[in-house]
Amino acid sequence: MATSVEEHAALVASLVEPRLAQIEPETVPLLQALGRVLSSDVLSPVDLPLFRNSQMDGFAVRATDATPTTTLPVEGVIAAAVGSPPALAPRTALRIMTGAPVPDGADTIIPVEDTTVDGDSVVIHRGRAAGEFVRERGSDIRAGELLLTAGTMLASRHLAALAAAGITRVSVLGRPTVAIVTTGAELLDPGAEPQPGQVFDSNSVALVAAVTAAGGEVTLVRRVVDDPAQLLAVLDEATGADVIVTSGGISHGDFEVVRELLEPRGARVGHVAMQPGGPQATAVFEGVPVISFPGNPVSTQVSFEVFLAPLLRAAAGLPAADRRPRRLAGPVRSVAGKRQFLRGRGVGADGVEIVAGPGSHLVAGLAASDLLVIVPEDVTELAGGETVETWAL
Amino acid sequence: MATSVEEHAALVASLVEPRLAQIEPETVPLLQALGRVLSSDVLSPVDLPLFRNSQMDGFAVRATDATPTTTLPVEGVIAAAVGSPPALAPRTALRIMTGAPVPDGADTIIPVEDTTVDGDSVVIHRGRAAGEFVRERGSDIRAGELLLTAGTMLASRHLAALAAAGITRVSVLGRPTVAIVTTGAELLDPGAEPQPGQVFDSNSVALVAAVTAAGGEVTLVRRVVDDPAQLLAVLDEATGADVIVTSGGISHGDFEVVRELLEPRGARVGHVAMQPGGPQATAVFEGVPVISFPGNPVSTQVSFEVFLAPLLRAAAGLPAADRRPRRLAGPVRSVAGKRQFLRGRGVGADGVEIVAGPGSHLVAGLAASDLLVIVPEDVTELAGGETVETWAL
Repeated sequence: MATSVEEHAALVASLVEPRLAQIEPETVPLLQALGRVLSSDVLSPVDLPLFRNSQMDGFAVRATDATPTTTLPVEGVIAAAVGSPPALAPRTALRIMTGAPVPDGADTIIPVEDTTVDGDSVVIHRGRAAGEFVRERGSDIRAGELLLTAGTMLASRHLAALAAAGITRVSVLGRPTVAIVTTGAELLDPGAEPQPGQVFDSNSVALVAAVTAAGGEVTLVRRVVDDPAQLLAVLDEATGADVIVTSGGISHGDFEVVRELLEPRGARVGHVAMQPGGPQATAVFEGVPVISFPGNPVSTQVSFEVFLAPLLRAAAGLPAADRRPRRLAGPVRSVAGKRQFLRGRGVGADGVEIVAGPGSHLVAGLAASDLLVIVPEDVTELAGGETVETWAL
Repeated sequence: MATSVEEHAALVASLVEPRLAQIEPETVPLLQALGRVLSSDVLSPVDLPLFRNSQMDGFAVRATDATPTTTLPVEGVIAAAVGSPPALAPRTALRIMTGAPVPDGADTIIPVEDTTVDGDSVVIHRGRAAGEFVRERGSDIRAGELLLTAGTMLASRHLAALAAAGITRVSVLGRPTVAIVTTGAELLDPGAEPQPGQVFDSNSVALVAAVTAAGGEVTLVRRVVDDPAQLLAVLDEATGADVIVTSGGISHGDFEVVRELLEPRGARVGHVAMQPGGPQATAVFEGVPVISFPGNPVSTQVSFEVFLAPLLRAAAGLPAADRRPRRLAGPVRSVAGKRQFLRGRGVGADGVEIVAGPGSHLVAGLAASDLLVIVPEDVTELAGGETVETWAL
C-alpha cells in the first residue's frame, strides 16, 4: 500500500526539520553577505547622518542674515573631510561642500548657484528658510532604531545601509549542509567513455546544483557501486552534514544497496503514490537524517523538489518556489491513484503546455521544462483549458 | 542646461556596450555553471537513453511468449551495470533491473509485481504489449539534436541533462569586469572610529554588491581621497576592467577630484535632469570607459540602477529588472524639470507606498524600500491612486 505524498512529506519533515532548526547563525563580513538572510534584527548603532551636514555646495549662513541681495564676508571653507568647522559668526558666511559639517551658528545653506562670489565676499541672490539644505543628525535613522529586520535577504542597498552605519559583519542564517550519495554500478563520470550498460551519472550534478539553489551547502559528494560496505563507509564520512541525500538503491531489484544496508537499521522503505518518484525511503544514520530518492534522474530531481527543497529553502530563509494555477494548453492523461508531476512550460501569463512524456528517464525533457504540472491522484484525464497547479522550477 | 536621463543613458551605453560586446565566452565545469548563461546552443553528443533499457524491475521477454499464465524458464539476470546482456532465447525470460540493457530478442518487460517466481521459472500473471516498459535508445533526445538553447540560465535540471549526455564543461557568457573607485576625503572604513567630519564609506560595499548582483565581476575596489595623483594611479591599476565606476568628485565643490583629473582629459561632466543623481560624468581612460556617479550614497545606488545595471545584466544574460506600473498609496510631490526616483515599497499586488524622503543621503530609507518609484520630469504632483512606473530593486 503506497503512502500519500503528504504523508511522506510529513515523515521527511519530521526527520529533517528538527535538525535544520539547530543550525546556528553565522557571522559574515558584509561583502560575503550578499544574498544571505539576516538571522536577527539589526538596530542602528549610530545616528545617520552621523552629524549635521550640508546637502549642497554653497554657503553656510544664518537664514536671517542671507536675504537678497546681501553681501556677506566669506570667513573660510568647510570641506567634506576630517575636522570640526569653526563656528559661524553672525553676518558672515562660510563656504561649504556637500556632506561637510554645518558650523554652529549656521541654520541654512545658500546653494552656490544662488550666489555670486566677489573676492572674499559672497552676494546672496536668493534667501532660504532656516533648515533648508541642512541634513540634521539622525534624520535618516537614530541610534537604537530598527535598521533591518530579521529575514531580510541582503541586497546591495541593505549592505550599503549597514556600511553607512559603520557595521562590518552581520549575523545571517546558516546554510543547511547536505551530503550527497549516488548509487549504482552502471554509473559513470560524464566525460569518460561508456562501456555497454553504463550511463553517465547526472544525479550528482543535479543534486549539488539543486541543494545550492535551495540555499544549502554541499559538504560531500560520493558515488558508490552496489556494495553495502562501501555505502557504509561513505555514510560514516557523511555524518558531519545536517542531511544525507541518496539516490538509487531503494526499489525492488536484486541490487538495492541503500535498502540492503539501511532497512536492517530501521530505514522506512516504501512506495509513495506519485509519478515519477514512487520508491522513497528515510532513515536515521548516526543521528543524521538520510533521505533516499529513487535513482532515475527525473525521479531524483522531482523527489528533491517535492520533499527536500521546501525544507532547505525555509531553513535558509529563501522564499518558497512559485506555485500557482495555470490553464492547460492541451489534454492530459494520468494514472489513477498516483499524483503526477508532469513537465511543462509556461505559455503566456497563465497557460502551460506539457513538454515531455511521463518517463522518469527523460532528462532532456525535464531540461526543456520550466514548470512541474501537478495532476491529482483521483484525476485521470484533463481537457485543454482546465486548470492545474504548477510549480516553478 | 541639464541633459535628459535618456540622453545620458545613451551616452553611457555608447561607451560601455561596445566594450561589453567584446567579452569572450568562458568554458566552465558543470558544477561552476549554476546560474551562468549558455553562450551558444548545445547539441546532444549522444542518443539518450544511450541504449535500450528497462523501465522496471521485472523480466525481459518476447511479448508473444508471455501471455497469462505462461511459465517461462529464467535463464539469467541482467543488472544495471557494465556489460552486454546475452540475447534472449525464444520462450525464456531474463530477470532484468531498472535501467539495465534490454537483451536482443526481448521486446517487452513484465514487471516483477505481475509475476510469481517458482525456482528457476517465472509465472506470468499479466502480459504486456511489445515495447511496454522498454525505453528505446534516443527516445529522450537523439545525437545532434538541440539539448539546450543559447541564453539558457543554467539551473540544476539543465546541468543534469548536460551530465546525462556525458558533457563536463559548457561555454557560458563571460562576466563583465568592473573596477570600483570611491572618492572623498571624508570617507572612513566601516568599523573604524569616526573623527569629526568623517562618514563611513558605504559606496564601496554598495557598488561591489550591485555589480555582483547584476552579473558582473569586481576586479578592483579602491578608495582615494581628493587627490588627483592618487586617482590617476588607481585608474592606471583599474584599466584591466571592462568598465571603471567612480563615485563622488564630479560636482561643483572646491575638491572634485574626478572632475579635476578627467575633465582636462576629455571627460564629459554635467548635470542630468534627475533626482537623486543630478551630477554625472563619463570619460574614457586608456581605452576603458569610466562611468562616474555622484557620491551621495542614494545618488550612487540609483545612478547605478538607471545607467549601468541594465547594460551589465544584458551582457551577462540576466533578465532585466522587473518594471511595472503600480498605484500610489498616497499623494506625491516632485520637482518640475527633474525625473524623480523615489523610494517605495510594494503594497498588495499592484500598490506602492513611498517609504523615505527624497534626500540623497537617506541610506536607511533606501534600505527600507524595494522599489524605485519614477515620477516624470513634467509632473509635480500625483494623487493617491494614480499610476506610476516602478522598478524592482
